[in-house]
Amino acid sequence: MTEIRIEDLRYIATGAAILGAGGGGDPLVGRLMAEHAIAKCGPVRVIGADQLDDSDLVIPSAMMGAPAVMLEKLPSGNEPEVSFRALEKIIGKKAAAVVPIEAGGLNSCIPIYTAAVLGLPLVDADGMGRAFPELPMVSFGIGGVSATPMVMSDEKGNTVVIDAIDNAWSEILSRPVTIAMGLAAMLAIYPMDGAALKKLAIRNTVSLAYKIGKALDDTNQALTSPVEVLCEVTGGFRLFTGKIVDVTRDMTTGFLRGEAGIDGLGDDDGATFRVEFQNENLVAWNGDRLVAATPDLITVIDAETAGPVTTENLQYGRRVHVIGIPCDPFWRSTEALAQVGPRYFAYDVDYQPIEHLVEGVNQ
Amino acid sequence: MTEIRIEDLRYIATGAAILGAGGGGDPLVGRLMAEHAIAKCGPVRVIGADQLDDSDLVIPSAMMGAPAVMLEKLPSGNEPEVSFRALEKIIGKKAAAVVPIEAGGLNSCIPIYTAAVLGLPLVDADGMGRAFPELPMVSFGIGGVSATPMVMSDEKGNTVVIDAIDNAWSEILSRPVTIAMGLAAMLAIYPMDGAALKKLAIRNTVSLAYKIGKALDDTNQALTSPVEVLCEVTGGFRLFTGKIVDVTRDMTTGFLRGEAGIDGLGDDDGATFRVEFQNENLVAWNGDRLVAATPDLITVIDAETAGPVTTENLQYGRRVHVIGIPCDPFWRSTEALAQVGPRYFAYDVDYQPIEHLVEGVNQ
Repeated sequence: MTEIRIEDLRYIATGAAILGAGGGGDPLVGRLMAEHAIAKCGPVRVIGADQLDDSDLVIPSAMMGAPAVMLEKLPSGNEPEVSFRALEKIIGKKAAAVVPIEAGGLNSCIPIYTAAVLGLPLVDADGMGRAFPELPMVSFGIGGVSATPMVMSDEKGNTVVIDAIDNAWSEILSRPVTIAMGLAAMLAIYPMDGAALKKLAIRNTVSLAYKIGKALDDTNQALTSPVEVLCEVTGGFRLFTGKIVDVTRDMTTGFLRGEAGIDGLGDDDGATFRVEFQNENLVAWNGDRLVAATPDLITVIDAETAGPVTTENLQYGRRVHVIGIPCDPFWRSTEALAQVGPRYFAYDVDYQPIEHLVEGVNQ
Repeated sequence: MTEIRIEDLRYIATGAAILGAGGGGDPLVGRLMAEHAIAKCGPVRVIGADQLDDSDLVIPSAMMGAPAVMLEKLPSGNEPEVSFRALEKIIGKKAAAVVPIEAGGLNSCIPIYTAAVLGLPLVDADGMGRAFPELPMVSFGIGGVSATPMVMSDEKGNTVVIDAIDNAWSEILSRPVTIAMGLAAMLAIYPMDGAALKKLAIRNTVSLAYKIGKALDDTNQALTSPVEVLCEVTGGFRLFTGKIVDVTRDMTTGFLRGEAGIDGLGDDDGATFRVEFQNENLVAWNGDRLVAATPDLITVIDAETAGPVTTENLQYGRRVHVIGIPCDPFWRSTEALAQVGPRYFAYDVDYQPIEHLVEGVNQ
C-alpha cells in the first residue's frame, strides 16, 4: 500500500472496526473527514516505518473521548491540524509524517485526515494494532516515549497543552479536559523521533485494516464464508457462533462496562458463551472456560451482514460470530501485560495467548 | 508602601482575610511561603501601577482551588515560578512586575512569594479589591484582557497550558484540571501590558490590606474598638453584632454554599440577621431587610479577638460583628454586576450600594 485514495477508505474503515475489538468507536465520522480531505488535498502517501530517518519528528494524531458524541457534535474540521501545528511549534520542528495511535475504530481515519490536510505521509503502523481506552496503553509509551507535551483542541477553538510527569498523569489530566470540551477532543500526542517509531511501532496495520476490509467485501460478493476469510487474513480463530440472549451495561465509571451472553447455534448448539467488555471486548468464556483475553482481540461480527458489531451495538436477538485474533507480540511482555492484561481491567484471570486457549476448539 | 519585609506579612495577611469577605482562604500558607522567600531573596519592592510603562508585561500569580487543601497538600515551593516562567516563554517576553489577582485571602500572599523569588517588583493593586471564586470575575477580564494563555502547575511537576476562546471557557477548562491536580494549582494568568493594568487594576489594595492589619493590631494593643477602626480604615459600616445560632452548608456543587443565622446582642438585641454565602459572604439580611449584597464586601469578625472569620469557620455560639464595606466603584457598572452581582449567584435580589442600604442603620 503506497497511497490512500477515497475509494480505499471504506475498506480501511471496515478493517479498523474489526481491529477495534468492539471499541474505538464507529469510524464513520473519521472516514467522512478523511474523504473530504482527500477530495480536497489529494491522496495520502503511505510510507513504511523504515523510510523515516532516525531524527525525523513523527506525531500521532487522534481523537480522545466518546466517539458516539462525534456523530452529533461534529468537528469543525481543523482541530486535528490546530493540535498538530501547535505541537510542532512547541517542539520547534516540523513533522516528517503522521502516524495513527490506534489501528482500530475511529482513530484509524483521523490521522488520514490530518496527513491529507497537512500534505504529510502516513506511516503504515500504529501504537496498538487494535484499540485501547487509555492514553498510556500505547506501544510508544510502554517503550519509553512520553505522551506529552500533548495538545488537545475542540471545535470551538479552545486548546489545552499538557506536560505531565509521566504517561499515567497525561491520562489523569486530559480526561477531565476532554469531558469539559464536550466529551471529544482532537489530540497531537506522543511526539517521537523516527528511531523510537521504528523500535516501537506495531507495523503494517493500516494496510492490514485495508486488507481485512477488502477481503470481507470480496467475500460478500463471492458468498464465501466471511469468518474463514477473516481468520485467514488476521491469523484469527472462530470462537463461537450464536444468538445474543442477554446484555448488561454500566456507564457509571465513565467507561462502558458490561457483558453479553450468547447461546450457541449450529456447531455450538447447546453451549453458552460470554463476552465481557469495557469499551473493548476484553475477556471471553465458553461455559466456564476462558477462550480469549486482552490484549488478544475479541471481535464480534454480525452473522448475516458480516459487519463488525461494536460493544454499544450488542443487542438481544442478534446472531453473531465471535472471532479471536492474536495481538501483536509486543503486548505479550510482562511489562505490557501489566498495562493492558485482564488484571489491569480488574478481571480475575491471567493472560494466556489465544493460540494456547483455542487448542481443541472447533475452528 | 515601598517594600514588603517579613514583619509586614502578618499585617497584610490579616488585612487580606478581612478583604476576603469570608472567602479566598486562610492566607497562612501563602504567608509562610512569602516569609520563606523574603528571608532567602530579600524584601519585595512595591510599585504603583503608574510606574509601569504601557508596553511592560505584567503577570498575575495566583493559586486556584480549595485553599484548605493547601494546609495538608503543601506546595513544593516552585510551582508559582514554573507557571510564571512558562507563561513568559509562551509570550516571548520577560515580565516587568507581578500583580495580585485578589486582594483577599490566600492570593494576597502568593504573588509576594513569586515577586520575591523572581526578583520582580509587586504592583500595589489587584483585579478584585476583595475575593471572588471564578476566573472571569476579575477587573482585568471584565475590561477585555484575556485570562489565557494561562499556565497551571502542581507540586508534582505537571503543567497545563490553556488557550481558551473566552474567559468563561478558561474557567470551564481549568476547574477540572485543578481538581485532577489535587484541588490546588498555581497559576500564571491574565498576562497584560502596563496600559491595561493602569486602566483596569483596583489600586492600592496591597497597602490597604497592610493598613487594615496594622490598624487592627494597634487597636488590640490600645483596647479601642476594632469595629470602629475597621470601619474607619475601609470606609465600612457595622451591620450587626450577635451570636451565631444556626449554620447550614452544602458542598454538592463544588463550592461551599450556605447561610448563617445570627441573634442580636447589645444594640441589636432582639433582632435576627442572616448571611448567605458561596465561598464568600454574598448577601446579608437584617430580618427581612437586605442590608448588603455582593460585590460590596460582607466580613465577619470575631467579637472577642477581632480576627476575621471565614465562611468555613462560621460556628454555632460564636459572637461576631458583621461589617459591610463598599466595593471598588469598578464593580458597580451594569456589565460588572452581571458577572458578580447577587443574581449571578442565583439570589433573587437586585444589587444596591451598601451606602444606600445602611441609611438608618445604627452604626
